[in-house]
Amino acid sequence: MRCSVFIATSLDGYIARSDGGIDWLSSVERPGEDYGFGEFYASVDVLAMGRKSWEKALSFPEWPYRGERKRVVVMSREAREGRHGEEFHRGSPEELAAALRAGGAQRVYVDGGVTIRGFLAAGLIDDMTVSVIPVLLGAGIPLFGEGVPETRLTLQGSRAYESGLVQLRYRAGRA
Amino acid sequence: MRCSVFIATSLDGYIARSDGGIDWLSSVERPGEDYGFGEFYASVDVLAMGRKSWEKALSFPEWPYRGERKRVVVMSREAREGRHGEEFHRGSPEELAAALRAGGAQRVYVDGGVTIRGFLAAGLIDDMTVSVIPVLLGAGIPLFGEGVPETRLTLQGSRAYESGLVQLRYRAGRA
Repeated sequence: MRCSVFIATSLDGYIARSDGGIDWLSSVERPGEDYGFGEFYASVDVLAMGRKSWEKALSFPEWPYRGERKRVVVMSREAREGRHGEEFHRGSPEELAAALRAGGAQRVYVDGGVTIRGFLAAGLIDDMTVSVIPVLLGAGIPLFGEGVPETRLTLQGSRAYESGLVQLRYRAGRA
Repeated sequence: MRCSVFIATSLDGYIARSDGGIDWLSSVERPGEDYGFGEFYASVDVLAMGRKSWEKALSFPEWPYRGERKRVVVMSREAREGRHGEEFHRGSPEELAAALRAGGAQRVYVDGGVTIRGFLAAGLIDDMTVSVIPVLLGAGIPLFGEGVPETRLTLQGSRAYESGLVQLRYRAGRA
């Protein structure tokens, strides 16, 4: 089982504004260009996300994960009510990973700053695709930071797009 | 006059460990490969750096800027003694830029986290070359953060090296 990150950040490392806003991502929106997300998404059978990412997803006009045969697991300390078949996990990333592995999961899409950092801290992230958006936000919700252990990365590829987005692909392993 | 940044960061945006350590840069050291620094350095006639960068430079076995016909300006609130012809500037980035412009400076190499953020806050940075090192440090001295205004960037180029370093080149302008 692999655990993968696929995320966009500003050059200064924010995945959203302080209020959760992602309007700044529109600067790289191009018709017909999904920056590889569709291919990545098709490769995962489980989504593991934090409560904030889940609430963000709920705020969209349509539930973004519907119609897919994928397990959606929300990491949340408090009991919640799923509206779209989501499962809720109150334990640690290690416990979730063990349960998913036991359940036959092949590739887990780990999303949300807190959840990604938790998986990194547990040494559970296998690969990361980071799309660097050409903007400095100055403030916001960071991708990395507290709790991230020193981690050696191996660049697997990079690609610059006409929009100015540069996508970096890494394999992760403890330093 | 242009003000330019040329700097390496970990993927999580640190330019040094919390104690100033830059040992992690050694993972991308390759004989004969300077990642364009020599060409960049030859193009600048002034170095503007913060006190910490200056103290770091003083700690090197050799003063790294000797033998060059470049002005070295250290931003420092306190009076200091230059040992290698350095000048000291107690004013704002705006005041320093005005003085340098009046003095005929062509291209200023702005270095050090605090100094770079100060120049960004003043809208004085024209271009940034950021070399992303394939490592997460987890903690350290950040490149960006407090005081950086929202700034739209234009990607001018990117290049991946065999070492895993990816160099991103941007022009900067206020969003």
